[in-house]
Amino acid sequence: MLPVKSERIPRATIQRLAVYVQVLESMRRNGVEVISSGPLAEACDVNASQVRKDLAYFGEFGVRGVGYHVENLIEAIKVSLGVDREWRAALVGVGNLGRALLHYGEFKARGFHIVGAFDCDPFKIGEQVYGLEVTCTNSLKDAVRNLDIEIGIITTPPERAQRAADHLLDAGVRGILNFAGARIHVPDKVFVEYVDFFHYLYELTFNISGAERHR
Amino acid sequence: MLPVKSERIPRATIQRLAVYVQVLESMRRNGVEVISSGPLAEACDVNASQVRKDLAYFGEFGVRGVGYHVENLIEAIKVSLGVDREWRAALVGVGNLGRALLHYGEFKARGFHIVGAFDCDPFKIGEQVYGLEVTCTNSLKDAVRNLDIEIGIITTPPERAQRAADHLLDAGVRGILNFAGARIHVPDKVFVEYVDFFHYLYELTFNISGAERHR
Repeated sequence: MLPVKSERIPRATIQRLAVYVQVLESMRRNGVEVISSGPLAEACDVNASQVRKDLAYFGEFGVRGVGYHVENLIEAIKVSLGVDREWRAALVGVGNLGRALLHYGEFKARGFHIVGAFDCDPFKIGEQVYGLEVTCTNSLKDAVRNLDIEIGIITTPPERAQRAADHLLDAGVRGILNFAGARIHVPDKVFVEYVDFFHYLYELTFNISGAERHR
Repeated sequence: MLPVKSERIPRATIQRLAVYVQVLESMRRNGVEVISSGPLAEACDVNASQVRKDLAYFGEFGVRGVGYHVENLIEAIKVSLGVDREWRAALVGVGNLGRALLHYGEFKARGFHIVGAFDCDPFKIGEQVYGLEVTCTNSLKDAVRNLDIEIGIITTPPERAQRAADHLLDAGVRGILNFAGARIHVPDKVFVEYVDFFHYLYELTFNISGAERHR
């Protein structure tokens, strides 16, 4: 029952799938067992034909005239996104944002376990942060091997992002989530995602300013 | 010297413009005055023809055989994005993520001033957080008017996101940056951007899993 050709799912669809999973899980918590594309689309703020098209990848879970089985659909989407299993991550840079992420219970709830917290500041090393002991970044390589870590999270200041990335790459992580607000260089086989709050803020200011221009 | 038809710039371009500004500002700090599309493209991890196409909106800043004047290009992109002026924001939900954002100096450095911090938890009200006094969410409306706030930032738990949004809407904000991990309903004239870390994580796990499937 694996969705076919999942590796061909385009990026925009992946982002919507992430929204669908979020909304479907909230529906499941509320006891919903079957949902049709209309109400799902409305809850996700996406039009219904787009939802049907996206979920065509998971066709076998749609029952004509009835809708999608919520539980099965969640599972199928998770398999295609690769989140039907646990992932272990190391966080580098225990500043405010790092601490916020370490404290963010939703990661663990969704199968992302931050199992190591690293910093090169001697005043932070040894500190307990939400159950993790902050460790010197030099020991990252051993930790990645011993703790089965595959993902690195960079929350350093921008000027230290590349050094953090180099440590993570040397340790052999396969993907990096970079919050640092600086571009980093990695080999082709390693995936990087940049989380930049300004993308969203610029989108807002662009839209608000545009609405003003049209008044 | 305003870029023409800036309101027609597509969303994907806006996201790249945000990257260009970030990279250009870093170049400016390093004393670079003129840059051609090749090195700019490389620094931004975008191909050069895409950079030239995006910057065609700002054509007058490209000088054939020389490149773009960094200073002027930064200014022109900022005008088109609506960030050539200051924006004032109110943050609702002073948990860990809220605190991290209040402490995040880059916002102010780029013209986004969080001038109010709101929470409905009586144990938090009155607390000083990085120079702001946490205020009861019920007083949001007065603050938005008195402090010229146009943007709301929601950092509440998911189940309180809509209530926070309702307060912000009632107060008359024009855009919302929602970190809460829950969809919110707003009227058409108000813009919402969802910041969801899981979009990025799912993109990573999808790519890593896909690379595995192809081995």
